Amino acid sequence: MNKGFVSLVGAGPGDPALLTRAAAERLRRADLVLYDALVGADTLRIARRARRFSVGKRAGRPSVSQDTIHRVMIRAARRGLRVVRLKGGDPFVFGRGGEEALALRAAGIPFEVIPGVTSAVAAPALAGIPVTHRGIASAFTVVAGHSADAYEPVFDAVRPGTMTLVVLMGVGSQQRIAEALLTRGWPPSTPVAVAYAASREDAETWTGTLATLGSEGPHETRRPGTLVIGDVVRLRDVLADAPVASHLEEAVR
Amino acid sequence: MNKGFVSLVGAGPGDPALLTRAAAERLRRADLVLYDALVGADTLRIARRARRFSVGKRAGRPSVSQDTIHRVMIRAARRGLRVVRLKGGDPFVFGRGGEEALALRAAGIPFEVIPGVTSAVAAPALAGIPVTHRGIASAFTVVAGHSADAYEPVFDAVRPGTMTLVVLMGVGSQQRIAEALLTRGWPPSTPVAVAYAASREDAETWTGTLATLGSEGPHETRRPGTLVIGDVVRLRDVLADAPVASHLEEAVR
Repeated sequence: MNKGFVSLVGAGPGDPALLTRAAAERLRRADLVLYDALVGADTLRIARRARRFSVGKRAGRPSVSQDTIHRVMIRAARRGLRVVRLKGGDPFVFGRGGEEALALRAAGIPFEVIPGVTSAVAAPALAGIPVTHRGIASAFTVVAGHSADAYEPVFDAVRPGTMTLVVLMGVGSQQRIAEALLTRGWPPSTPVAVAYAASREDAETWTGTLATLGSEGPHETRRPGTLVIGDVVRLRDVLADAPVASHLEEAVR
Repeated sequence: MNKGFVSLVGAGPGDPALLTRAAAERLRRADLVLYDALVGADTLRIARRARRFSVGKRAGRPSVSQDTIHRVMIRAARRGLRVVRLKGGDPFVFGRGGEEALALRAAGIPFEVIPGVTSAVAAPALAGIPVTHRGIASAFTVVAGHSADAYEPVFDAVRPGTMTLVVLMGVGSQQRIAEALLTRGWPPSTPVAVAYAASREDAETWTGTLATLGSEGPHETRRPGTLVIGDVVRLRDVLADAPVASHLEEAVR
């Protein structure tokens, strides 16, 4: 019997301690791992027996097309391999996991989805910012910031200042995102945080306001980052020094 | 030296395979676990050495007050215990994790936050529904459905039909939520799913539309459930039969 199989797995924000137990188990048993740019070496090392290929964007190299990723997964599963498609955060939050699932389904390949810890919630949390908080924010909206086509219709659809906005993949568009929100009536004094490389060793958080993000903002694009926009950011003033989650990985060694 | 310490830990949607490795490690070393109603026995069993107390609502018993939870955590940490405050999903998504963090901070107790897999993303995913999908939904909003005071201002703030809505803790208010959205101009044909007990053995998903949710809807309140509202629900028609994530737990035994 052909045991070929694909697991669409969320790797969480970066620290291998934030992998789920199911994700770690799938990695240990994998024959082939196709991973995105943001997945770290310490996570990949768990896949001891597997051949491992990066399919994400990297400097000086075009990214592998979505069609190619589908074709490689399908071919490997047909050959009887256990394939892990490993994505940063959760596979169904802006990860094209849905498209990959549809392609596998159309090809008749058995697969499963293993949800992960999404950076949309974890990156703010590790910076001392709850995305919801009684009396401050009773909802949050998550949107992708890589292109104006993605975020502008969403900004049009949400009334200014009414909830927490979390923007993933937005570090390269910080200034344009700030302008797009200010134009739509968000107050310039709205608190903003940019959580870089959450849960990783080089994690760092910038805080300011929509006004300062648009002008003197951090403008860094080397590390991945999560933008958090709204009054919950103020809680970081009290909570940020307390969490010791930077020691997470140590704990599971 | 006093080693007392509090970990605010997300337990994920229910299946212990969806615990993070850090969460499982904290449970194994805990002296005291204070857990919410939705945390299952198989997750609690990981905390072998700990005294375990339910602080969530249960039939025929008033729930423990938030003040009491704070007091018990603080006192136990001062006595040198390793305390785990275990919450369903993620501790900072409608879990009052922020309030507990502030109370610990005010009392000078060292603590950490361990993000978990939130049901807002995982419950739809395990039912074959990506919360975002290229060409269908480029954002999602998460809101709590336990009271109209919580969800009505949010429904007022989001333009009808523009993104995926995920409502947590809304199974008891299905009909009122449907009416609130229809009144605000959401099309009656908007697809809706209610994912009950996601990742647990008694998981089950109802699908219909806003119109049918309001009239003939499932109206079950025994199991916890997550409402997903928007066109992404249609993907379940293709994806639902494929995932085999119900076998997750088996994999890590």
